[in-house]
Amino acid sequence: MPIITIELLEGRSEVQKKQIAKEITETLVKNANVKPEAVTILFHDLKPENIAKGGKFLSEK
Amino acid sequence: MPIITIELLEGRSEVQKKQIAKEITETLVKNANVKPEAVTILFHDLKPENIAKGGKFLSEK
Amino acid sequence: MPIITIELLEGRSEVQKKQIAKEITETLVKNANVKPEAVTILFHDLKPENIAKGGKFLSEK
Amino acid sequence: MPIITIELLEGRSEVQKKQIAKEITETLVKNANVKPEAVTILFHDLKPENIAKGGKFLSEK
Amino acid sequence: MPIITIELLEGRSEVQKKQIAKEITETLVKNANVKPEAVTILFHDLKPENIAKGGKFLSEK
Amino acid sequence: MPIITIELLEGRSEVQKKQIAKEITETLVKNANVKPEAVTILFHDLKPENIAKGGKFLSEK
Repeated sequence: MPIITIELLEGRSEVQKKQIAKEITETLVKNANVKPEAVTILFHDLKPENIAKGGKFLSEK
Repeated sequence: MPIITIELLEGRSEVQKKQIAKEITETLVKNANVKPEAVTILFHDLKPENIAKGGKFLSEK
Repeated sequence: MPIITIELLEGRSEVQKKQIAKEITETLVKNANVKPEAVTILFHDLKPENIAKGGKFLSEK
Repeated sequence: MPIITIELLEGRSEVQKKQIAKEITETLVKNANVKPEAVTILFHDLKPENIAKGGKFLSEK
Repeated sequence: MPIITIELLEGRSEVQKKQIAKEITETLVKNANVKPEAVTILFHDLKPENIAKGGKFLSEK
Repeated sequence: MPIITIELLEGRSEVQKKQIAKEITETLVKNANVKPEAVTILFHDLKPENIAKGGKFLSEK
């Protein structure tokens, strides 16, 4: 623990996601007082036709 | 907020999912007293070989 | 299936949540072609100090 | 109910996953006092580039 | 990894939940080829008024 | 979007959680190219008797 699940619109590059994972891990190590290897981060990349805001899919916008 | 995650068997059409997203948003606007754009709906389409009921995968039925 | 998880700010009344559950079930029966008893809805009521938007907790707003 | 979501690294065979679903269902029937068909198990197979431990993706290890 | 989240109706005893956690861990060690300490199990105990089946909360049944 | 859910052992202070929310939001704004208010972070604080690692609850350790 902790376990972080990130639901986000697909399309971010490997470099972006690596940086996100690195920084979030550092944030939790520093502020939640845990070891780096205790931090698990899961990315759920979602297609625009699977995310709706205000009743409309992102693929409709 | 609110955030609604729908886990369902893959295969619904875009039209079906659009109608589901539209109606669920209306339901929450009306009953949870929120603005439409505050409502986020995420669809997790799952393959039949990733859903088990009664110890058997849907792909086995 | 389907399984719907609703993450929302705590505080809605039982009446509001009953109406939400009723309408969402009807929406999925009508549009996803499933039986009412196949629809499971889970409410995760969250405290304002456990929901952050724009880097601030709702309890700070 | 109960609903079990399993987040795991993609790559397990159908046979492995069938056995996992079968045994977990038996465990819950025996220990949670529920009927087999009440137990729903969802598998979220994740790519190694979507799982980070200690700030590094499994695809980097 | 793997990470198992169990959504269930509150009320199971500590003994029941210990046995569930023990057996599910064994199942994954045996069938998913992982070490015991790699298996994380999270229990989300839900109140009957937060679980709806067929449009009705368990607290209404 | 994005939506971040953090499952963690209960007990972190408000100050710790505010700093976590602030830094994670900054990380996503910078690396996922989104606006701060688009970032939603949900904390699921779990009791030690609801988290099992290696088949044992944290409350047993």
